[in-house]
Formats: sequence, C-alpha cells, structure tokens
Amino acid sequence: MTESSMVKVPLEDVYRLLNIGATVLVSAEHEGVADVMPAAWACALDLLPAKATVVVDKTHFTRPLMEKSGYFALELPTAAIARETLYLGSVSKNDETDKLEKSGAEFFTVPGYKMPMVKGCAAWMVFKIVSEPHNESTYDLFIGECVAAWADPRIFSDGHWHFEDAPKAMSTLHYVAGGHFYTMGEAIDVEL
Amino acid sequence: MTESSMVKVPLEDVYRLLNIGATVLVSAEHEGVADVMPAAWACALDLLPAKATVVVDKTHFTRPLMEKSGYFALELPTAAIARETLYLGSVSKNDETDKLEKSGAEFFTVPGYKMPMVKGCAAWMVFKIVSEPHNESTYDLFIGECVAAWADPRIFSDGHWHFEDAPKAMSTLHYVAGGHFYTMGEAIDVEL
Repeated sequence: MTESSMVKVPLEDVYRLLNIGATVLVSAEHEGVADVMPAAWACALDLLPAKATVVVDKTHFTRPLMEKSGYFALELPTAAIARETLYLGSVSKNDETDKLEKSGAEFFTVPGYKMPMVKGCAAWMVFKIVSEPHNESTYDLFIGECVAAWADPRIFSDGHWHFEDAPKAMSTLHYVAGGHFYTMGEAIDVEL
Repeated sequence: MTESSMVKVPLEDVYRLLNIGATVLVSAEHEGVADVMPAAWACALDLLPAKATVVVDKTHFTRPLMEKSGYFALELPTAAIARETLYLGSVSKNDETDKLEKSGAEFFTVPGYKMPMVKGCAAWMVFKIVSEPHNESTYDLFIGECVAAWADPRIFSDGHWHFEDAPKAMSTLHYVAGGHFYTMGEAIDVEL
C-alpha cells in the first residue's frame, strides 16, 4: 500500500464507514497464524468510543484467532476484489491451510497490528474485543472498540463517501447470497 | 396496502432482507401509543430462528414502547420515502407528539400486530424481543427474533432482491449522515 491510498480516519467518523451496511472482511492473527473471512453481519454499535458488532460462527477458523489475540480488523472490500472476497468465504482454513495464498487477495500489515489487511478495500478498522462471553457463546456476537481506522481517500475522505465521483470498481459490496452482491448506486440528499 | 404489494417472506429468507445493510425504520406500540424512528444500526444475527440486532438509544421515544410491548418491527424504507424517513429521525415524539402525522409517511397495521407499519417500504419484519438486559442497558442493543416478514414482490421475491429490474425509487436506503443516503446500484455476480 502507498501512503496515498490509505489515510487515517478519525475515530469519531468510524460509524460513517459502517453506516452504509457494507459487507466486511474480518481479519485476525495469533502467534503467527492468520485468517481472513467475509461477513455480512457487522454493524456499528456506538459513536465514541467507536464500537461495532460482528457475528463470527464457532466453526470459523478466524474465531479462535480473535478470541486468543483479543483483536480483529473489519475491512470494507470493493467491487474490484469481489471474487477474492467470495473465495475467502467459500473455503475454510480448517480445510485448506493455504486459503489466503490461494484466494488471490494481496495482504499487508500496518505497524502495531499483526492481522493481515487486504489490499483493495475502501476502509480498514482495527478493533479491540470488549469481552462479553454470554454474547459470544450464545449468539456468536462479538463487540469491538475501534482503536485505529483508515480509508482510501478516493472513496472516503473528511467523513464523507464519494461513490458518485469514484470508479464503480471502488464501490463497497453488499452481499445477498450465492455470489450475488450489489454495489452502491446514486446518492440522495434530503433537506427537510 | 394492497395484497399485491406485500407478500409473506419465509423466515429462513429474512437474513437476505437484512444482508444488504439497508437503513431501517423501527416501529413500536404500547397501549395505543406508537412511534417510528429510522436506524442505521440494525443487522442480522441468526439464520433460523431468524434474529436481528438493533441499537435504540435510551433517549428515543420508541424505546420504552419496545420494552413494554416486547415487540418491534424493522422495515426497509425506499428512496420514494427518503424525506419521510429523515423526518422520522429528525424529530422526537418526546418533543412533537404529532410527529407521525407531520412526517408525511402513511401507516397501516397488519393483523395480529399493533405497531404502525410504513407504506412504501421494501420489506416489513416483526420481531419479538429476546430479553437481554445487560446488552440493552450497557449498549442500547436489542435482540429480536423474527415472527413474521413481508416484502414488496416488485423488489424482493423468492429470496432474491430485484434492484436491477425495479425503478430507482424502490431501492433501499443506505444512510451516511446529514440527510445523505445512497441507493443500491449495479449487481455483481461472482463465480469461483
């Protein structure tokens, strides 16, 4: 990643990254073992401290990495990496140890955090898990507090999305099922 | 509402209504008092029984109606009612008792449930609250189990969204902030 494609997002603007309801990638790492999986069930939970929820089933290889490290990242994949995103969700690292390498996705890390981030995302957010054992065991629901966030300034800057002015390939993805995604479309500005 | 604009959605397909991350309207009613408010922070939680989460702050008039009745509805407003949606979030019934009437939105009820549903939505889902006092008090996070769902078949039918073939005005809304929404755009179908 070059500096120009990844600009820090103030924590008070993180909810705006999540508000549009895009499909996320969940990254985690523990003692040199890493995984990345997509999830449609991620959501903002609080403005500041910025918090989010994400649902990660017990069967996923990513889950114990989150639990043991206490951290996870949520990233917003773009249309340009829709295929890689689907692949990361179609194969489990439980079955295919070189899943990440085979996915076609490219990874990088940011200083201070070890989880693999995915190139070609619109935004990257690192979360520290807020321990809630009942939610985790009963609902597979994890709560995280955001400790750092970045966005590609071509699509999000100064707290605003720029889908109107960016190539379609930079749109976030909104997953339905079976390899079927929608991208973001036209903007509507309402004044009361 | 006419029967043709509201078709029952099987509970196993409810997550597909929520997967795309659209902004919702939250409706609730208790002892003849009703309110409707928009929320960007709603998310699927489980496939079947179909569950969802929604964040509703303690300051909202809607919240005690949910707590006392044990039910809420989540609806997916369309671009056609973006203005009404924003109005329902800009004014609190704590301050304006005739907020619903002034919103310009049109309401109806479905047999068996008393909360006001909003006309012009893409989908309507009724949830029974799964009591989780810690989540509710600490995070303003409510969990509901879906007991009934309907969609406008022009935009969602047989478990599939049809944004490609429907008028733009029927798109779901994806809220950023300050009256700024995005609609759904082009579809992407990925095959591995």
